[in-house]
Amino acid sequence: MIRHTVVFRLKHPAASAAELNFLKAASDLARIPGVERFECLRQVSAKNPFTFGLSMEFADAAVYQQYSDHPDHVGFVQERWLPEVAEFMEIDYIAHEPAAAP
Amino acid sequence: MIRHTVVFRLKHPAASAAELNFLKAASDLARIPGVERFECLRQVSAKNPFTFGLSMEFADAAVYQQYSDHPDHVGFVQERWLPEVAEFMEIDYIAHEPAAAP
Repeated sequence: MIRHTVVFRLKHPAASAAELNFLKAASDLARIPGVERFECLRQVSAKNPFTFGLSMEFADAAVYQQYSDHPDHVGFVQERWLPEVAEFMEIDYIAHEPAAAP
Repeated sequence: MIRHTVVFRLKHPAASAAELNFLKAASDLARIPGVERFECLRQVSAKNPFTFGLSMEFADAAVYQQYSDHPDHVGFVQERWLPEVAEFMEIDYIAHEPAAAP
């Protein structure tokens, strides 16, 4: 399992119609094949500059790659993400298995 | 529900005994009352400088505060986190409910 997350801040004013419209479009990413446990989240810590997050899981790296290459994802990045997101950070997690360490 | 996460990089060499010892100590945070769905994670994206993450959930802000104030958490921060962590970012999430937006 790979959990792909991205934490971000929009160029839009808080609670604006443009903000809501973006988040609804982002939520459509959940329909892309292979996406599991999709979540649209509000970031609430004051210790970073971000206000929203997306989280989703993929069975493995191949499914993640298929998602990244999917035309709906590529189109969203070009048409919505790049013009409307002010700053972001991608964070991807896999389970840590300390038994595998020396 | 509040999901508290922290993504971080240790001062220790990768796969060292010191790294493993730190992660085991961090996993003991799961025993503090109120901690749910605790996860110790490996960060695998090349798009940020971090190598590990912790994720846990709290029922509400009051339970989160009790965790933050708990002596086992305070002790871990002072005795392990501050001396052994090179850099980190805290990210806290709550569910986004677009129906509540205008």
